[in-house]
Amino acid sequence: MSYWGTLCVLLLAAGPMLHAQKASKQKPLVIEQQGSFAIGGTVIENPGTFDPYKPTPAGQTFRGDHAYVFYQVPAEARKYPLVMWHGIGQFSKTWETTPDGREGYQNIFLRRRFPVYIIDQPRRGNAGRSTVAATINPVPDEQQWFDVFRVGVWPNYFEGVQFAKDTATLNQYFRSMVPNIGEIDIKVNVNAASALFDKIGPAVLVTHSHSGGMGWLTAIKNKNVKAIVSYEPGSGFLFPEGQVPAPIASSAGALEATAISMKDFMLLTKIPIVIYYGDNIPDKPSNNPGADGWRARLEMARLWRGAVNKHGGDVTVVHLPEAGLKGNTHFPFSDLNNIEVADLMSKWLKEKGLDK
Amino acid sequence: MSYWGTLCVLLLAAGPMLHAQKASKQKPLVIEQQGSFAIGGTVIENPGTFDPYKPTPAGQTFRGDHAYVFYQVPAEARKYPLVMWHGIGQFSKTWETTPDGREGYQNIFLRRRFPVYIIDQPRRGNAGRSTVAATINPVPDEQQWFDVFRVGVWPNYFEGVQFAKDTATLNQYFRSMVPNIGEIDIKVNVNAASALFDKIGPAVLVTHSHSGGMGWLTAIKNKNVKAIVSYEPGSGFLFPEGQVPAPIASSAGALEATAISMKDFMLLTKIPIVIYYGDNIPDKPSNNPGADGWRARLEMARLWRGAVNKHGGDVTVVHLPEAGLKGNTHFPFSDLNNIEVADLMSKWLKEKGLDK
Repeated sequence: MSYWGTLCVLLLAAGPMLHAQKASKQKPLVIEQQGSFAIGGTVIENPGTFDPYKPTPAGQTFRGDHAYVFYQVPAEARKYPLVMWHGIGQFSKTWETTPDGREGYQNIFLRRRFPVYIIDQPRRGNAGRSTVAATINPVPDEQQWFDVFRVGVWPNYFEGVQFAKDTATLNQYFRSMVPNIGEIDIKVNVNAASALFDKIGPAVLVTHSHSGGMGWLTAIKNKNVKAIVSYEPGSGFLFPEGQVPAPIASSAGALEATAISMKDFMLLTKIPIVIYYGDNIPDKPSNNPGADGWRARLEMARLWRGAVNKHGGDVTVVHLPEAGLKGNTHFPFSDLNNIEVADLMSKWLKEKGLDK
Repeated sequence: MSYWGTLCVLLLAAGPMLHAQKASKQKPLVIEQQGSFAIGGTVIENPGTFDPYKPTPAGQTFRGDHAYVFYQVPAEARKYPLVMWHGIGQFSKTWETTPDGREGYQNIFLRRRFPVYIIDQPRRGNAGRSTVAATINPVPDEQQWFDVFRVGVWPNYFEGVQFAKDTATLNQYFRSMVPNIGEIDIKVNVNAASALFDKIGPAVLVTHSHSGGMGWLTAIKNKNVKAIVSYEPGSGFLFPEGQVPAPIASSAGALEATAISMKDFMLLTKIPIVIYYGDNIPDKPSNNPGADGWRARLEMARLWRGAVNKHGGDVTVVHLPEAGLKGNTHFPFSDLNNIEVADLMSKWLKEKGLDK
């Protein structure tokens, strides 16, 4: 072989070797686009004339009630973006770094080549400019959230819970909450989420807890919601008028279903929907309100699956322990086994042809 | 030349050709790490015993007053991260996508291989969990901000202003504000910012407007602040006791300087500091309070530069029009010419050996 030939073979051989050296560490994210914007919202127009030289609120405007969205589009992106919507008291942090410092769904699904759009709903976090007045008080509530989010029964962790037991993790966990700036207005939130789907086109909506019910309403309002992945929806299960099940009692209070028109209900039979619930949900009534509310919600979710599928829909309810995933809290996507939780979601997206 | 030789030359030649094809479109961001965390803050511990079965605030805790930080570390990162801190009424959005949809400092400096850490200060945006009560009202204020931020004198834009004049841009601009959840507490904010520098080590602090004064205090508190780039600092200029200049009058009110000990003041002489102000700042008293306040601040910044440098410091004040950049608003880093504005900052970082 000539000098050139030898040189060339060495050059070609070097490629894989260098790659192998890097393989030990996680690959970088390759991001084609990233940025943020406000979407939806309203404008207050105050009567009067604005005087730049003696300014008062007269004649001025106030924009608020929009959602705030941070988005990233990876290289070789798949067709349908994932729109991730937080739950009660939460914001974008839900999907970012986990409380113990691992990668959350934002990074996990960017690595799986999905564009990721993360919402702060109106009057929450970075979308805090609210058109309604608010009084906010720092009411100590963390131990109650520890229980309601099924990390355990304070101060005890559930045995085998998928949650790191160090104090730094708990500190980050409790600091991932923000207040509502004014009442939570379902219509305002759904309008903003729908405006996002108008802007970005067909996408998959990923909801958590309180956004679950708003997610169904967003899908009714906007055909660009191609599918819904809902983690532990907490309320707002929608049934056709005349077919609404009785409230389900629990030590956290009665869980009521909501009536909508058959016309709207039928729209929910047109898209694939998967619902996931975690572990440590009692299978019979419990005097622990933190956990017992989830027994009622899981039961209602199964009733809802029956109703939608009876009308030709495609709703799947997965109780994670039945799928072999044990110890999950109310936040399966940030639990210690969140890669396995994400794998289940990826498998479902593939089955439904949503990962093209 | 042999077959191998010919093949090899072709392979080697292909590299540059392919590169040239890609050059038309902006390269993707290559991100080694990204995530978010809370830093700093305090804990309220409510007396009593928590009862999981009948929960009340008794015996519960409340964490708040932390900063929220979103960070990205690019491939082949430079040594010193940039920590970007928003101004009054603002949050991380300041540094993200510009109101007209271009890339802001977050992307621009990631492309220049700096790790970028973006702060939401305590009680603001995603750091909204506040330990103090708050009453928030939607007071129409946008026309006043248009003037104070020197976009123009409402409803007129300044001639040649570096700001897109379409309504969509103005909509995004006004929606990039969020309320304070409780009073702005300088000490709380500086403590949280300092805790960030404890966590990440030596870095360059980039401030805007209201964070300018808090930036000087953070540098006094934490030696990991290696340098400060301050865009349009609005208040909190620190002078040694006994050497405080008289307040500077303006139609926006009198601007007062703050006295600190000579010992603390001398710490500000140990790091390089650059201050930038934009255009359309009157050079003599004006009855337009929106603009006139900046005349006072620019004058105070020059007095401060004199005081720090007289004691051996390294403060540079750049009035952008004097550097040939015309039409900049209060947000030079997101103005239409923000690449040129960033180039000035990069040049300064290089001169000070901060871009290693």
